Amino acid sequence: MREANQGQMPTYPIVDIHTHVYPDSYLNLLRSRTTVPYIYGPPDGSPARLIILSSDDNPSIPKEQRGRPVDSTYSDISLKLSFMRKHSITTSVISLANPWLDFLPAQDASHWAERINNDLESICAEQHAKAKASRSNSASSGANTSTGETLPLNEYYSLFAFGALPLSAPDPNVIVNEISRLASLKFIRGVIMGTSGLGNGLDDPALDPVWAGLERTQTLLFLHPHYGLPNDAFGGDETVERYGHVLPLALGFPLETTIAVTRMYLAGVFDRFPKLGILLAHSGGTLPFLAGRIESCVAHERKFLANGGNVAGPRTSIWDVLKQNIFLDAVIYGEVGLKAAVHGAGSVDRVLFGTDHPFFPPLDGKDEQWLSVVTNRRAIDGAFGAESDAAKAILGGNAVRILNLES
Amino acid sequence: MREANQGQMPTYPIVDIHTHVYPDSYLNLLRSRTTVPYIYGPPDGSPARLIILSSDDNPSIPKEQRGRPVDSTYSDISLKLSFMRKHSITTSVISLANPWLDFLPAQDASHWAERINNDLESICAEQHAKAKASRSNSASSGANTSTGETLPLNEYYSLFAFGALPLSAPDPNVIVNEISRLASLKFIRGVIMGTSGLGNGLDDPALDPVWAGLERTQTLLFLHPHYGLPNDAFGGDETVERYGHVLPLALGFPLETTIAVTRMYLAGVFDRFPKLGILLAHSGGTLPFLAGRIESCVAHERKFLANGGNVAGPRTSIWDVLKQNIFLDAVIYGEVGLKAAVHGAGSVDRVLFGTDHPFFPPLDGKDEQWLSVVTNRRAIDGAFGAESDAAKAILGGNAVRILNLES
Repeated sequence: MREANQGQMPTYPIVDIHTHVYPDSYLNLLRSRTTVPYIYGPPDGSPARLIILSSDDNPSIPKEQRGRPVDSTYSDISLKLSFMRKHSITTSVISLANPWLDFLPAQDASHWAERINNDLESICAEQHAKAKASRSNSASSGANTSTGETLPLNEYYSLFAFGALPLSAPDPNVIVNEISRLASLKFIRGVIMGTSGLGNGLDDPALDPVWAGLERTQTLLFLHPHYGLPNDAFGGDETVERYGHVLPLALGFPLETTIAVTRMYLAGVFDRFPKLGILLAHSGGTLPFLAGRIESCVAHERKFLANGGNVAGPRTSIWDVLKQNIFLDAVIYGEVGLKAAVHGAGSVDRVLFGTDHPFFPPLDGKDEQWLSVVTNRRAIDGAFGAESDAAKAILGGNAVRILNLES
Repeated sequence: MREANQGQMPTYPIVDIHTHVYPDSYLNLLRSRTTVPYIYGPPDGSPARLIILSSDDNPSIPKEQRGRPVDSTYSDISLKLSFMRKHSITTSVISLANPWLDFLPAQDASHWAERINNDLESICAEQHAKAKASRSNSASSGANTSTGETLPLNEYYSLFAFGALPLSAPDPNVIVNEISRLASLKFIRGVIMGTSGLGNGLDDPALDPVWAGLERTQTLLFLHPHYGLPNDAFGGDETVERYGHVLPLALGFPLETTIAVTRMYLAGVFDRFPKLGILLAHSGGTLPFLAGRIESCVAHERKFLANGGNVAGPRTSIWDVLKQNIFLDAVIYGEVGLKAAVHGAGSVDRVLFGTDHPFFPPLDGKDEQWLSVVTNRRAIDGAFGAESDAAKAILGGNAVRILNLES
């Protein structure tokens, strides 16, 4: 997996817009809990376990074996920066990892959201200060960072962040206030959200103030799966267990995203909020591939018939929503999906590189470039040509423009 | 929706490989039943109802309103032929509509499969005899059928069929015997199957004799969804109900297919039966788009690690399975999906035109070309150019070659 450019700075921005962090405040929150999601620290001092899925919290398994070990890559920013350097990523837009803050008691939501978002802002601010100092040093020493020389670890690299929302707050105004506050923070560039919304999915009309707030502040929403599909969809617990994480992660996650955004579409969210911008994880789940079938099923649904239908159907074509409201990450692991994503998005300008770090590390533990990242890089180079304008746009240019990452 | 070529014969074969029929024997079988799937004939003589999904058999709804009316397009071959003529389809490979024969008591399976398959064979044989007579008449009268003149209804058009299997038979040998018998019938060109197999999904090792039988007789398996996903996947019954059939049909069906074939793949079916050929409905569900993610999740699944993994993972790449074992229909309603299907299949030679008739008729009831069919035709013409070699291959050439439709 060693590639020629390992550890070298590219001469153009490479931006990772899909990269997760559990900041210390979030880890502390999870440590304070005893029900999913929570972190369990065994009294014997063996590694703590992160248990974020109900299915992981199986009472027949000892607690010290449930879920997964709390990996230092989840929270250690220096490891994020090493990862960026190893893969020549100049800028990362970090986001809180799932399950975000949906589970919080209503009265705690605002407090934790603010605290975690402030943590994210501080992490970015600190790194920007370091990078600024490092750049000014290399400028005064005459070093040329554009020729691909290896740079010192942890320096030069930029961080921005997507904030988290207090979705369980008792009043949507609390959520809207946090959206407004986030828009005033220097390094926050949007918000990340799961598919449950206020608990009833993203077609819930009670979310309208949230969509309005995002639209008004021009805040990008990064929509990301967490729950997958019920195990019954895959043939039951035993079948899922047989193949490890493959069925829930490979198929459940993308379908969860597709269902969530399709429900928004069917409920007319994009008709009511035509300037709402959403970044869909994993190249839209399956949305680019299934958009035609969705459009056809809508056109053949008697409920939506203008005359005689008893429910208002979506007015905007799903293809137009893809071109006007939706951005897709390029975390799709192959040229077939990537080309379909670009084709569905209507332009190479709406697809953005990402890694899903710290997930999908190499299983052999070797300290080389990650197969998961290399696969996505190769798909971009293969589909559009290495160093082509299109590849550079997907790798970073689009993110810089859309998220205003120069400042 | 009126297109210039309505009612004219094309100068090259246009083959519909995804087109369903409920032959009289199947309707009689359904009429003889009182549990799903069944046909209910109200005693007052009002139209009979077809109730094929458990969710349709809602006890709080009067029986005469459950499911859908038994539409004559489901069984009337002259209506199938009119539909073909209207859309310039020269040949249809008809298949029994869902839910096929999975529900039969074990002792009845063989009897009904044989009876229904013989019905399908007779329907095709009868039409071939008519077409042969018609062609010989027009030859002797000097008419030129290649210049696009309008032909008499019900003549000229060819029918072949996919048979159904007695999957609930008490002994896999009964299924294998029917596969062998079908291979000897003149107009049968494969078998259609749902995703439940013998009741435990298509990764069930008990299906190995069936895969072996299909491989040995070089019988194509048309894999088609029926059950969709549990309503919980979509947010529950109320959410599904709100949008009519859109969520189950647009998203549930394609995911069901994807899950079924992914389970086959993960269980090593294509490693054990490398010559098994499968035609996937709806362009593979979402398989072409998600193949990269499936491949990546397999590569990162600790269970499948060659050293230290406790379960054998699939040996063949999913991309190779797409190129070696899988054919895709072109029922995807848009250029984005169609191009991804062709790209995923590795070649335009493995993608085949279909209509899904008699489903998705025009809601306005007007007797013009169907939007659902025109959308798929336009996607082919748009992606590859009308009358291009690639378009002709997808529209019919591939089916003629793969299914040997000349005889």
